[in-house]
Formats: sequence, C-alpha cells, structure tokens
Amino acid sequence: MSGALEHRPRRRMDLEEYLQGVMTGDRTILSRAITLVESTLASDKQVAGRLMERLMPYTGNSIRIGITGAPGVGKSTFIDGLGGLMTAAGHKVAVLAVDPSSQETKGSILGDKTRMQALSQNPAAYIRPSPSKGMLGGIGATTRESSLLCEAAGFDRILVETVGVGQSEVSVKEMVDFFVLLTMPGAGDELQGIKKGIMEMADLVVINKADGERLHAARIAQQEVVNALHLFPPKRSGWTPRVCACSSKDAKGLDQVLLVLDEFTRQIVVSGFMESNRSEQRVHWLMQQLQYLLERHFFEHAEVRREMSQVREQVRQGQVSSIAAANRLMELFLK
Amino acid sequence: MSGALEHRPRRRMDLEEYLQGVMTGDRTILSRAITLVESTLASDKQVAGRLMERLMPYTGNSIRIGITGAPGVGKSTFIDGLGGLMTAAGHKVAVLAVDPSSQETKGSILGDKTRMQALSQNPAAYIRPSPSKGMLGGIGATTRESSLLCEAAGFDRILVETVGVGQSEVSVKEMVDFFVLLTMPGAGDELQGIKKGIMEMADLVVINKADGERLHAARIAQQEVVNALHLFPPKRSGWTPRVCACSSKDAKGLDQVLLVLDEFTRQIVVSGFMESNRSEQRVHWLMQQLQYLLERHFFEHAEVRREMSQVREQVRQGQVSSIAAANRLMELFLK
Repeated sequence: MSGALEHRPRRRMDLEEYLQGVMTGDRTILSRAITLVESTLASDKQVAGRLMERLMPYTGNSIRIGITGAPGVGKSTFIDGLGGLMTAAGHKVAVLAVDPSSQETKGSILGDKTRMQALSQNPAAYIRPSPSKGMLGGIGATTRESSLLCEAAGFDRILVETVGVGQSEVSVKEMVDFFVLLTMPGAGDELQGIKKGIMEMADLVVINKADGERLHAARIAQQEVVNALHLFPPKRSGWTPRVCACSSKDAKGLDQVLLVLDEFTRQIVVSGFMESNRSEQRVHWLMQQLQYLLERHFFEHAEVRREMSQVREQVRQGQVSSIAAANRLMELFLK
Repeated sequence: MSGALEHRPRRRMDLEEYLQGVMTGDRTILSRAITLVESTLASDKQVAGRLMERLMPYTGNSIRIGITGAPGVGKSTFIDGLGGLMTAAGHKVAVLAVDPSSQETKGSILGDKTRMQALSQNPAAYIRPSPSKGMLGGIGATTRESSLLCEAAGFDRILVETVGVGQSEVSVKEMVDFFVLLTMPGAGDELQGIKKGIMEMADLVVINKADGERLHAARIAQQEVVNALHLFPPKRSGWTPRVCACSSKDAKGLDQVLLVLDEFTRQIVVSGFMESNRSEQRVHWLMQQLQYLLERHFFEHAEVRREMSQVREQVRQGQVSSIAAANRLMELFLK
C-alpha cells in the first residue's frame, strides 16, 4: 500500500494540514499522519510530537478493544463481522494491528486487506496495515499513537488486533479498555498452556468456529474456559470475565459479544475504572517510551557500539562480571 | 547484624585485603565483600568492580540452586535440612536470599538466623541475610554478585532463597542452575493460580509437610502437580521436571531431593546445557544491569527530576501524549 504511494513523490505536509486533515476525518491524511508517527526521522518526530500534542484534547472518545488469538482461530473473519455490526449500529470503526512478527514478514497480519472483505469496503471503517519496519517505539508504541489519531479523526470503536504470542498482548492490554481472547474448539493442551497468561488478561473469551461438527466440542471448550477463569484472581476492574461461543463465518453469536461489551463499558464508566485505568495506561506508556528511548540512545552511542560486542563476549565467557562490564559501558556512555 | 558491626568504626580495607580474605574463605571478610558489592557509594562501586573482575576466574565451581515457595510452606526448615545433608556429604553451603519485600520490612526473610538453627551453627555453611536497603542493581543483582563471591570463597553449593511472589523468581531462575518450588498439601486454588508461572520454571517441585495427617493430601497434591507439569512445554535443558514429597520437619525425603539434584547436574553437564545456560545468564545480567543503570542515571538527572512530576501529571491527565512527553524528557537528559 505504502509502496503504491511512494511511486509519485509526495509533497511535504505541514502541521496545520495534518491537523486539519485528521480532524475532518480525511483518510488519506490520517494514513499519512500514522506514517508520520511511525517514522524514525528526527524531523518527522518533531512534527509528530507537535501534532499529537495538538490533537490530544480530541482523543479518548472511543471504546478501545484488544483482540488476540493464535493464527487460524479466525480473527479476520471475527473482526470483519464484529466491525460490520458496529458500523450498522452507527459507529465508526478503526482496525489497527500490533504485529511483533512484522519486522521479518513485512506485516504478516493485516498486510492483505482482503482478509476483511466486507469491512475494507465499508465507508464507516478504516483498516490500517501493521507497521512493517522502523517502528518508533517498542512493540505497540506507534499503534497506541495511531489509535489516538483515529480517535481524533472521529472513530469511536478502535479494534487493536494482535497474534497470540505473548509479549505483544501485554502491550495491547495496556492500550485498550476491553480485551478479547479468541480461541476455537479442540485447541490442544500445549496451545492452552501458552495461552494461560493471555487468558488471565481477558475480559471476554470467545470460542470461535462454534459451528457444524464443532458445536459439541465448542460447548465443552466453553465449560473448560469457564473453569479455568475461576482460578484467576479477581480483576482490578471489578469485572467478571465472560465466555461466549460464536461462529464468525455464519455471523452467529457476534451480537452477544456486543452485548457483553456494552455491559462492560457501562460498568467501568459508572465505577470510574475506565478513566482511572486510562490515566494509568498513559503513565505506563510514558515509562515504556522512556525506557525504549534510553536503550536506543545507549545502544546507538558510538563508543558503546564499538565496545559492546567485545564486552558482551567477555561477559559470556565469564572473564568479566556483569556488573563490572555494565559499569564500564555506562562510563563510556556518560562521558 | 550489620548494626552490631557499625558500632565500632571499621577500618577501610583495600582491594588486596578483600581478595586475600575472600580467597582464603575468611567469613568476616566475605561478609564485608558482600556489603561492598551491595553498596551504592561510588568509591565502593569502583573497588567492588575491580574485586569482581579479579575474582571471576575463581567463580563457577558450584551448583547454584534456587528455592522458592510461599510464606508458610517451610522453606527455612527445608533449607536447614537440605544444607545439613550437603555439608555431611562434604560440601560447603552458602545460603543467600533475594527478598523483594526487604525494602519495607528491612529483610523479612533470613533476617533472623535462628530460622535455620542447625545450619547457622554449621562450620561448613554460610548464611547471608538479605540486603536490607540500597541495593545496587534491580532485584537480585547484588545477590548474583554475592553468589560469585561465595564461590570464590570455596562454597560449592549455593542456595538462593526467595519468597514466591513472582518477579523475584524470574530473577532467581536467571541466576541458578536448578530451580526448586516448595509447596504443601492443601494450598488453595488461588495460591495455585499465582504459582502457575513459577511452577513452569521449576526443575523440581517439592510437596513439603508430607507428614502425619497430611500424608494422604500430600499424595493427592503430588499427583496434581505431576498432571500440571505435563501441560507445560518441554524445557530447553531437556530435563523433565520431577515432583517429590518430603517432610523437612521429620527430615524425610530430603535425600531424594539430593538424588534428583545429582541426576539433573549430571545430565546438564553432559549435554553442555549447564555451560551454555550460564553463558546466557551472564549476558542476561549484563543487559539487566545496563537497563537498571540507564534508568537510575536518567531518573536522578537534575533537570529530569525537576520536570518529571509535572510532565507525568500532564500525561496522566491526557494533556500531553506519552511519546511527546518522553521526547521532551529525553531532550533534557541528553542536553
């Protein structure tokens, strides 16, 4: 997609054009603003920083939903169907992705818009492929800024998709209000083992592909998940996680997912958790970003780079202690 | 303990005295060397760094064993008994603690040597109370250096104790060869839920207090743990985790623990995992220490400190985006 744009040289836009474009919901400019936020160029970063600062008052007016699940459980079809129901109810839906594998695969998820056929042609929906390289922050940092841009552009349902592999889920959990784990009947024990940590974060577990021959297995899986959820300590939000079975393919059960989401939202708005949680999330992201920037500056420092591989090797072989080596590298950095 | 020492002014020792003392196994000097490594004073850090560098060739000749478990499962009695068996077999045993709660409680575990009555009077054993304040690294960093000091002093069994609360276990796992989770019959579901992540790291799960009326419950617990262990993916070490039942109080089953440890050690020495794992651990600790030092320098930077609370509050309230705020703070730091 960005490849197509790059064929014709793009005129440089100024801050006011970005602002105006995003605020009026211009998709082309929204896309360029997201690209700006993802850029690692110092000049872009400056404009992006100012843009975000100006747009902050217009963000926050959305429900942020994280959706995760292992490859093959039907995330695309699920999001396609759920997003369609949301737009039918009058909402504007933005779909973003946090894809830890994108560095290698050049965007393995959402790279192909045809994965969400209906939604990609829906005028009330916006699908952004995952950043393919040169991410500004750690995992998910730019996705978080992108979701703020989408909010400023008027999207009031933000769906953040991620592959269920661990680290990225923690990041996504920290940027959303509601976290959905998608699974399917007959997922093996090993898969379940990996997913325990993710399941603990879920506000809703959806057993997808509950159709045809899998209907019975889905009911068993549903009960298993209900039992598993009981083992986790209560959530800070006060919310008791739910389990739904649905068939995204047959568009069955998705309305139930929306009902649960509505109930959840009402509860956390009333209790004040939504606002307090978002405040904490913002501070969390500040700290994450600081950590990322600190490490980047450190590891890109000329003298540190020159010494690093040798020092690392000395530590690996046990010739120098970790603390002594760390002190030496820090001295180079601070000099 | 350190309180008693501080009553009389201590003569400053030089590097050679530390070296000589540690290498000859002088316990008083070993204790002072550990205190030196824990110190945050710049002058101490320099000496500590040089000391560690000089001692590195004399480290590594031990089996490092991590022992964790919730309060009340009988860690002290277990370590007391196990350590005794080890010294009886001709080994020299050092017991160290990683105690994340120590900042608040001034060392809630190992603060009282009477917890390990036999071992504390055993001439072949050395018990070091947990660092009570001013730790040099993140959780466990100084404990790792302390264990190296103990190795240089001739201790060939290092027992690292930690309370089963999560973060500290990950640190301990990264500094030991063999990781033991201690539990007891009838630990509730909630407790089990918390322990899942820790259980996954265990090479051996010990059902302690398998005595008297609890004997039947212990057998059930043992089978439950065996089943639970099957759900986890195979370990990189190639080792299949074991489950033992024992009664530390009655000194029953501890010999079985030693047999498992022997078998484990033989297997990972032969496979080469022991050495490759230790190499990776050293690099891991280098990176941990760098991250810790970077953050400390950043947050102690005068201008950063002056601005931090205000910027943090702006981010919390959503007035400034996390990335824009992070960039601003980084500029102050790098100026």
